Amino acid sequence: MRVNKMQMLYEGKAKQVYATNNPDLVIIHYKDDATAGNGVKKGTIHNKGILNAKMTAQLFTILEQRGVATHFVKQLNERELLCKKVEIFALEVIVRNVIAGSMSVRLGIAEGTVAESPIYEICYKNDDFGDPLINDHHAVALHLASYEQLATIYQMTDIINQQLKQMFAAMDITLVDFKIEFGMTLTGAIVLADEISPDTCRLWDANTHEKLDKDRFRRDLGGIEDAYIEIANRIQNYYLTVTKEMEA
Amino acid sequence: MRVNKMQMLYEGKAKQVYATNNPDLVIIHYKDDATAGNGVKKGTIHNKGILNAKMTAQLFTILEQRGVATHFVKQLNERELLCKKVEIFALEVIVRNVIAGSMSVRLGIAEGTVAESPIYEICYKNDDFGDPLINDHHAVALHLASYEQLATIYQMTDIINQQLKQMFAAMDITLVDFKIEFGMTLTGAIVLADEISPDTCRLWDANTHEKLDKDRFRRDLGGIEDAYIEIANRIQNYYLTVTKEMEA
Ligand SMILES: Nc1ncnc2c1ncn2[C@@H]1O[C@H](COP(=O)(O)OP(=O)(O)OP(=O)(O)O)[C@@H](O)[C@H]1O
Ligand SMILES: Nc1ncnc2c1ncn2[C@@H]1O[C@H](COP(=O)(O)OP(=O)(O)OP(=O)(O)O)[C@@H](O)[C@H]1O
Ligand SMILES: [Mg+2]
Ligand SMILES: [Mg+2]
Repeated sequence: MRVNKMQMLYEGKAKQVYATNNPDLVIIHYKDDATAGNGVKKGTIHNKGILNAKMTAQLFTILEQRGVATHFVKQLNERELLCKKVEIFALEVIVRNVIAGSMSVRLGIAEGTVAESPIYEICYKNDDFGDPLINDHHAVALHLASYEQLATIYQMTDIINQQLKQMFAAMDITLVDFKIEFGMTLTGAIVLADEISPDTCRLWDANTHEKLDKDRFRRDLGGIEDAYIEIANRIQNYYLTVTKEMEA
Repeated sequence: MRVNKMQMLYEGKAKQVYATNNPDLVIIHYKDDATAGNGVKKGTIHNKGILNAKMTAQLFTILEQRGVATHFVKQLNERELLCKKVEIFALEVIVRNVIAGSMSVRLGIAEGTVAESPIYEICYKNDDFGDPLINDHHAVALHLASYEQLATIYQMTDIINQQLKQMFAAMDITLVDFKIEFGMTLTGAIVLADEISPDTCRLWDANTHEKLDKDRFRRDLGGIEDAYIEIANRIQNYYLTVTKEMEA
């Protein structure tokens, strides 16, 4: 059955979600819009949508090959990914391998401090309250997830972190931190959803420590498009290498 | 050996801590000073120090009788408690049975909502950063406690909550939430430290739902001294009942 794009279900800050003629599937369209500080700072990053769609497709493909269930089905065109429709857990799951950003500011730990073990955080995905940090008890009280679902989410997150760290290390990139989202498919499976891109990760060149992610936009560092292109190229090369190995 | 009060080791917002001639022991002196909003609002509550010292002494005595290790040794005079000297974990451990205060504001849950299961929180006890909410991973990254120590602290907290809930229920008081601190004695034991009083608990009359705690000060509700006296009287009556039962 050919998949047809139907009405828009949701428009977010960076993406649009469309229904399709298959009730199990959605099309996620990646825009060039960029925001920071809970929408306070707004702009566009030229071709970001194209780059992020491709990076997400390639990273999710590799993660699937390594045992992580994701919502990704296939890339339809340069800005659109076909994905399983999920009910998103209203949680932002954050992993920090190196301290940066809000954790550095909130707790007074110097940016760049390497964490002795990964730091997991969950935030309540709710713009009205500023996506506040919460813990498992809050998530349960807010009916965002059960303790059992949270345990599954943390297990998956741990595997995702190990895999991504190793993948980025092979591209000479330090995976400083990242934000992921999980959803439940119509058949009840918990899967990795949303995107993984320089919008949602802090990525530092392993040798020069240059920031190659959305912090260039947040902090007005310039060179933002080049940074996204650089990451996209390294992911593409890695993707081609590992998928060739798969075929061999 | 008679205990002699020596130099002041620390002056906090509500208490002073004095060294004694026994290196294992400190004297904690309870003041009438009250602060709220991380010291922004300041005042005094007449005789608060006397009332809180007595309530803490009686509650810690009962908790000890019910298997909770505490720092409390004995009451020396109306404002001073003799306690084991501990190294305080720089954590505020909060338990919420009913949603109120900061959790209500941060997450948009109506004050008075009963939690289906107790909500535990830890905050980084550091005034410079506003005692921010953290999770176990942050506590470990900040070297505030190990994962093992946190597990002990949560186990003890769970018992303390069960005991306190039951004790206050017998006094017709709803234990809405409370903050406790833990410390490590010079011999390496983890014990409940600091105080338990209307400064550190939200206590509502079980029938009228009247607030009988520091929220009367924080929110300028008036009748603060009477509320503390009311709680002190109910604790005293309960204390006399259960210690009589013990003797019988
Ligand atoms: N497979 C999926 N099915 C349904 N919704 C999804 C799926 N994957 C991601 N989403 C949701 O689609 C939206 C994508 O839009 P975008 O990322 O631009 O939102 P946003 O501006 O970040 O706002 P928010 O993420 O806070 O809703 C997000 O709400 C995301 O949670
Ligand atoms: N047994 C103990 N040995 C040593 N210190 C203790 C003991 N019990 C409590 N303390 C500490 O003594 C201090 C009591 O002072 P107080 O409660 O007024 O402080 P505060 O103004 O609340 O500030 P903070 O608690 O943030 O230091 C606290 O720092 C508390 O952690
Ligand atoms: Mg998003
Ligand atoms: Mg204190």
